[in-house]
Amino acid sequence: MTLVVAALGGNALLRRGEPQTLEAQEANALRACRALAEMAQDHDLVVTHGNGPQVGLAALRSEAGGHHPQPLDVLGAETEGLIGYLLERGLRSVLPGRAVAALLTQVEVDRGDPAFHEPTKPIGPLYDEAAARRIADERGWSIAPDGHGWRRVVPSPSPQGILELEAIRVLVDRGVIPICAGGGGVPVIIDADGRVHGVEGVVDKDATAALLARQLQADLLLLLTDVEGVLVDYGTPAQRLLRHTTPAELRSMGLPAGSMGPKAEACARFVEATGGRAAIGRLRDAVAVARGEAGTQIGALP
Amino acid sequence: MTLVVAALGGNALLRRGEPQTLEAQEANALRACRALAEMAQDHDLVVTHGNGPQVGLAALRSEAGGHHPQPLDVLGAETEGLIGYLLERGLRSVLPGRAVAALLTQVEVDRGDPAFHEPTKPIGPLYDEAAARRIADERGWSIAPDGHGWRRVVPSPSPQGILELEAIRVLVDRGVIPICAGGGGVPVIIDADGRVHGVEGVVDKDATAALLARQLQADLLLLLTDVEGVLVDYGTPAQRLLRHTTPAELRSMGLPAGSMGPKAEACARFVEATGGRAAIGRLRDAVAVARGEAGTQIGALP
Repeated sequence: MTLVVAALGGNALLRRGEPQTLEAQEANALRACRALAEMAQDHDLVVTHGNGPQVGLAALRSEAGGHHPQPLDVLGAETEGLIGYLLERGLRSVLPGRAVAALLTQVEVDRGDPAFHEPTKPIGPLYDEAAARRIADERGWSIAPDGHGWRRVVPSPSPQGILELEAIRVLVDRGVIPICAGGGGVPVIIDADGRVHGVEGVVDKDATAALLARQLQADLLLLLTDVEGVLVDYGTPAQRLLRHTTPAELRSMGLPAGSMGPKAEACARFVEATGGRAAIGRLRDAVAVARGEAGTQIGALP
Repeated sequence: MTLVVAALGGNALLRRGEPQTLEAQEANALRACRALAEMAQDHDLVVTHGNGPQVGLAALRSEAGGHHPQPLDVLGAETEGLIGYLLERGLRSVLPGRAVAALLTQVEVDRGDPAFHEPTKPIGPLYDEAAARRIADERGWSIAPDGHGWRRVVPSPSPQGILELEAIRVLVDRGVIPICAGGGGVPVIIDADGRVHGVEGVVDKDATAALLARQLQADLLLLLTDVEGVLVDYGTPAQRLLRHTTPAELRSMGLPAGSMGPKAEACARFVEATGGRAAIGRLRDAVAVARGEAGTQIGALP
């Protein structure tokens, strides 16, 4: 049976412009799981997910509560519990009888990663520029433009290893669907004595999904988002979907750092390292993207 | 290799009278893991834990934040993420090279469970009576006396099944230490169509640990807490530790519902169902309790 690692955007559960309620997240989680269900019939499946909107909201809640604001590693672990719960409930609802397990996942990062001095990962809600600057001053946040507004940005160190790899492998081998590497995994460093420490950051979930897919020797890395795939001649009358490409071509396109760039890099690395296939496409078209009939395909076609 | 299911009290991480900080929880988690580490050398081990103090704090934070307060099932899932992270980090720190995995765990409960109409499970901080009554009025909480003060109480339905049992079994079979059934597991109901819904409640963690130990056919159920064991002639000059007892004797003692009663019932059920051994004792004496040299032993002695 072929193995698919499918990564869902954090926006798959908490969409821009929708009310930021639990009900909306529950409905979106169920919809996401329906899109994945057909794939789980024919393939071994590992599900990973982002947490950008959720960890940002959790940080706001933590600061507003006045009870010792929590650091980002702890908030990341809490969002793995929350999103893991919603997705596991959703998958069980659409695949009754199938074993599913959401795992808390930690990723080792390098203490010297330059990302700790250059925050780039947007989290939480969108603000207009004036509000973003005011809040950033008050709270010591870094902020950056994102789409039609501004958002808080935090360090996003590169994932070097997945601490739960062995457990994930064991579950896949026995037909369980693991939900893991949520929010890219909680970033930790391991000191010379073997002691594990959390660090403040949010890892790119596509980078971790690609690392996991490489280490599991997956056949397909599927990055599922809210856009059709990689677009060429973006914003011009000639704009069109890039249907099939190579790692080298993808890297040469100079895709934007805040959105498609990290996805392209994750796919390129996976394809180069394994000779497998990666694809980027809409979550709702997941099955067609997996079959190579929609989205952008990178590497050998099926 | 014998299989031990060890349940840690929520108070093992967030102790009464200590500052309710993350640093305190991290230090306590590491201490708890050191107490378990020696056992993990000689036995297969499954770790479960409570979440009473943490889920109560999370509920306060959620209400204070003003961003759509979260229901108890969702807060329970978040505390499984948080505590699973702290305990997994702790176990990895004291057992380098050993595979550990914290799993989000859901337990099926009965929609008609009378517990939904009789809240009994204390969560969150201790208040004096006047403060407790005022907050209860403001927020529609149920409250009850607990030790030297009053606490919020919530429904605690009885666990009927563990949704992740298969995944937990697979991990144990392959030598991974699962951290699971945190806070007794997130309570869910499954409707006629197989759809899984969360419900507002906090399951008793000892009841779920006993159910898990029965279903895994564990050799030993270990309830680790901050007291020496079951005391007889409590509060009199003749007060002493009950060293060894039977399920029938334990049930006849009329132990208090808020503390030792549920532990005694959990142990009695496990021993009756499996013929195995259960023990209640101090977390810091975990190894001696497991060997039958400390705490209260229920069932066949080792």
